[in-house]
Order: sequence, then C-alpha cells, then structure tokens
Amino acid sequence: MLVLTILGNNSAIPAYGRNPTSQVLQTQEEAYLIDCGEGTQSQLSAYKIKRGKINHIFISHMHGDHYFGLIGLISSMGLMGRTADLFLHAPADLEEIIRLQLKAANNTLPFTIHFFALGDECTIYEGKKISVECFKVNHRIDCWGFLFRQKKNPRSINPERVKSYEVPSSYFGHLQQGADYITKKGTIIANEELTDATAPPKSYAYCADTIYDERIAEKVKSVDLLYHEATYLKDLHQRAAERFHSTTVQAGAIAEKAGAKKLLIGHFSSKYEELDTFLSETVEVFSNTELALQGVCYKI
Amino acid sequence: MLVLTILGNNSAIPAYGRNPTSQVLQTQEEAYLIDCGEGTQSQLSAYKIKRGKINHIFISHMHGDHYFGLIGLISSMGLMGRTADLFLHAPADLEEIIRLQLKAANNTLPFTIHFFALGDECTIYEGKKISVECFKVNHRIDCWGFLFRQKKNPRSINPERVKSYEVPSSYFGHLQQGADYITKKGTIIANEELTDATAPPKSYAYCADTIYDERIAEKVKSVDLLYHEATYLKDLHQRAAERFHSTTVQAGAIAEKAGAKKLLIGHFSSKYEELDTFLSETVEVFSNTELALQGVCYKI
Repeated sequence: MLVLTILGNNSAIPAYGRNPTSQVLQTQEEAYLIDCGEGTQSQLSAYKIKRGKINHIFISHMHGDHYFGLIGLISSMGLMGRTADLFLHAPADLEEIIRLQLKAANNTLPFTIHFFALGDECTIYEGKKISVECFKVNHRIDCWGFLFRQKKNPRSINPERVKSYEVPSSYFGHLQQGADYITKKGTIIANEELTDATAPPKSYAYCADTIYDERIAEKVKSVDLLYHEATYLKDLHQRAAERFHSTTVQAGAIAEKAGAKKLLIGHFSSKYEELDTFLSETVEVFSNTELALQGVCYKI
Repeated sequence: MLVLTILGNNSAIPAYGRNPTSQVLQTQEEAYLIDCGEGTQSQLSAYKIKRGKINHIFISHMHGDHYFGLIGLISSMGLMGRTADLFLHAPADLEEIIRLQLKAANNTLPFTIHFFALGDECTIYEGKKISVECFKVNHRIDCWGFLFRQKKNPRSINPERVKSYEVPSSYFGHLQQGADYITKKGTIIANEELTDATAPPKSYAYCADTIYDERIAEKVKSVDLLYHEATYLKDLHQRAAERFHSTTVQAGAIAEKAGAKKLLIGHFSSKYEELDTFLSETVEVFSNTELALQGVCYKI
C-alpha cells in the first residue's frame, strides 16, 4: 500500500492556513517528498512524518511555492545529525542556489546530497519497492510530473501448504517470485498451490502546475491515483490558460481521459477561501474525486 | 512611539509552534522588518501587519533561520502587485542568491529592490522619523546588530498661545523645530511659551546571534529596549560559547552593562519546550526583562 499525505495544497501565496505545495508518499519503509514549499519542515513535524524516512526528494519546477522550503528542511536535517545520503531530483538551477546558500552559512552538512537534474522523460529512480518516472507537463517555465509505480509485490507463502509439501525454506524466495516447486520425486507443484497473491502494485501520478494538456492523460494512463492541479474554478478558464494553470473541470477531464481510478485536486488559488465548489465542479466530470486536504492521508 | 512585534522567537529548527527569527518595528507610518526566517510571510498575515508598510528589511546574517523566508515574502509582494521600491540591508552574499532564485522562476518583480551590503559599522538608513545604525556582533559567521533611533519629535504647537501672540501659521514649522518668535514690535517670545514638549525619541537595539561580548554593551548604551539573544539557559554556557550563542544571564549582563531601560530575550533553542526558566534566570541579573513572545507587541 502507498499512503499520500498532503502537507500543502495552496498555490503561490499561503492563505487561510493553506501552505504552498508539498506532499509525501510513503511505503512502509520509505517516504518520498514531492515538492517542498515554504513551511514544509513544520508541516512534517505537525503530521509526525519522520524526516529520516525521506531519502528522495522530487521538485517539479522552480516556482518558489514548490521549493522555498527545501533549504530549510535540508539545513534542519543537518542540525539534527542526519548522516544518510539524500537524493534530490530537481531542475538543474536548484543545485547552484543550494550550494550558495550552504556556502553563505559556512554550513558543511554531515550528509551528502546527490543532485540529479531533471531533463528527458525517463525513469529517474529505480528502487526495490518503487520506481519513479518523470514527464513534462506544460507550465510557464519547465515543469515535470512524476509517476510513482510500486513494484510487483512478492507472493505470500502459505505456511500450511509449504509444510505439507515439505518445501525447504531456502526455496521460499523463489516461490515468492512465482516459481513452481519440484518435489524430490519429480512432481511439479504449481506456485498457486503454495502461495497466495498479494495486493497488486499501485501507482501514483503527480501533475503539478500545468495548463490543460491532453498529452498528460497519455502519460498517466490507468494510474490508481492522479493528483492534478486545479488552481481555479471553471469560470476562470481564461485566466487559468493565461497563467498556464488548470481549472476544476479540466483536471476532471484529464482524469477521465487517462482512465485514472481516482483523482485528487489541489494547488488552490489564494482567491478562494471555501473549497466546496472545487469538488462539486470536478465530480460532474469525474466522479471519484477528492480535494487534496492538508494532513489527510490518502491510501492508494 | 515605536511598537515591536515578534514574528518568530526560536533558534534554528522551528519547534513548539515557535518560528525562526523575525521581528517588525513599527512607527505610525512605516514598518521595518528585522530578519526574516521561514514562515515570516504567514506570520505577517496572522498578525495583520500590512506588507505595504514594509519598505526596509534588515537581515543580520546568513544563517537560514534569519533569512530563508525572505524570498517567499519578496515573491508574494510581487504577486500582490507591489510597485514601491524595497530597500534591503543585508550581508553581500544574499544579493546573488535572490538574483538566482528570481531568474530560475523567470520572475520579473513589478518593483525595484535596492540592495545595500552590510560592511562597516555606520548609519545605514536615515529617514525622516528613524535612523538605523549597524554594528558588529560576534557569531560564527559575520553578523550585524541594528540600532534604531527615533528622531527628535517636533514640538507641539499650543493653539491658544500662538493665537494670542498672533503668530502666522507660516511660522509654525520653525516653532516645531524650537525657534523663538519675534513679534512685529520686536519682542522675543520664547519657544517654550508657544509650544509644548513631545515624547522624547526612543531607541531599539537588535542583537541577534552572538556570543557574550561586552563590546556590544558599549554599542547600545542607554537604549530604551534591547533585544539580545538567549539561546540557552545558564547551565549550558559552555555549549553557548562553542556555538557562539549566549545564555540568559549573559543577555542580562549585557543589558545591565549597557544601562538599557528594558531587555527582551529570544532565539530560544529547540531543546526547550517551556520558557519560564529563561525569564526567571534573566531577571536575577536584569530585572526589567521580558520574553520575546510571538504575536506580542512591545511598546517602546
């Protein structure tokens, strides 16, 4: 299972207690931080998410409401004595900014930052449990979306069956990967006899700031959970287009075209205090929609 | 009257709802922002301080807990349509960092930032109502204190007396500056006959991160309100010295030596949840002490 926690759901200017964009996607072992607007480190504390679980950070683009909190988080990680390497996937410009900020503070971090500049659409991280691809979205400046795919879960050993067929425990790893078992007498025991299926792998796509662009739907085809920005209500579609943002119904349309299982909308403009209409407008286009609300954990 | 509002009173890592350092000193017309830790723009909103009143920002040093909120504040000022010039008094390194951040966002601000690099101890701002001097404090990296001095208030015209002596209104400006008046018959009317004294000018000294250094007391002699950092309680004097910070009793000693009228202590370490002992330790050395508490307005 993947769990997504929203740390910030607002667009550029913080308002009504809504922070700028940041999210954290968690497996049991790790936490992947996606964007890091100002105040993210305080939000991590507020929602009791352990910074030590974060080894990979993904920054979509260089508008401040998506990264101004990063240097504060990194500095605090240093002060708290982090030693584990940190992997930063971000637009190339960010590296020099961080370098200058650390230099000006005469701050030598007790851990190493590995910086990976986003560029081509490709797999940018391949872990044991998760892979991450980046793809271009369509904003005023270069901006990337991220597609997280859980790897196929190993099959679950059925303890009674393996006992009855006398399968040695040294073979369990093969069983988990789907192999059949051949007994000493040469009988083939089908894998399905010895193991149970586990939950199918899940996927999560993050599409931050972007104008309505149907090519995005192709890139996130059949995703389990799609986050798509919806900065404005539908009446402001012209303003949305001018600012390279999307409206509620446009986010819904992308989810529909992608065949997403579920849609989460966020990056709400500071113009709006109430968010109810964001939901009601979007569900008219794509019924399985929720608002991205701070502190809420969305299970995938 | 000057009014100081505390926006953040914590040291490096935000904790217990305490933000990193920022303060705003207000006259009736203007607001002077002193340091700008992460989250300052949200604190300004929370305490309903108008960003438009801020024309001068003073940054003491390049540790992030004193400036990481600045680029967010500047960006938001731009989004909110500010056109008035902004004057930034800060260590030289900050200019390039801000330039890179704006460039990466392709952000052309609708207002001009005038950058003044801190260097020698001198008067760095001379306004109609306020002058500001900077002076060196003693931290791990270059760090400056700021001394705000209200200018002598003009004397208050006594309406009945000027009427009885038939002083033309065109002469009121001279009276306010202390001039005597000579009647048509050549009689000298002393200024004190025509005007009343107004409140004496006040002063505020801000001493951010510093080790205990008695030279500071000389620089803030007889100040009305002294803010001095007190990162640690007195038992941690060794740790304070190692980190170039001060303890409660050291802050009190500087206030005592300076002959300050009142002392405000802040920049509390994230080690401490409760702050009561900070106050009780300091008042033993300097009785007129208060804790710098967020959202509280201290009248000078």
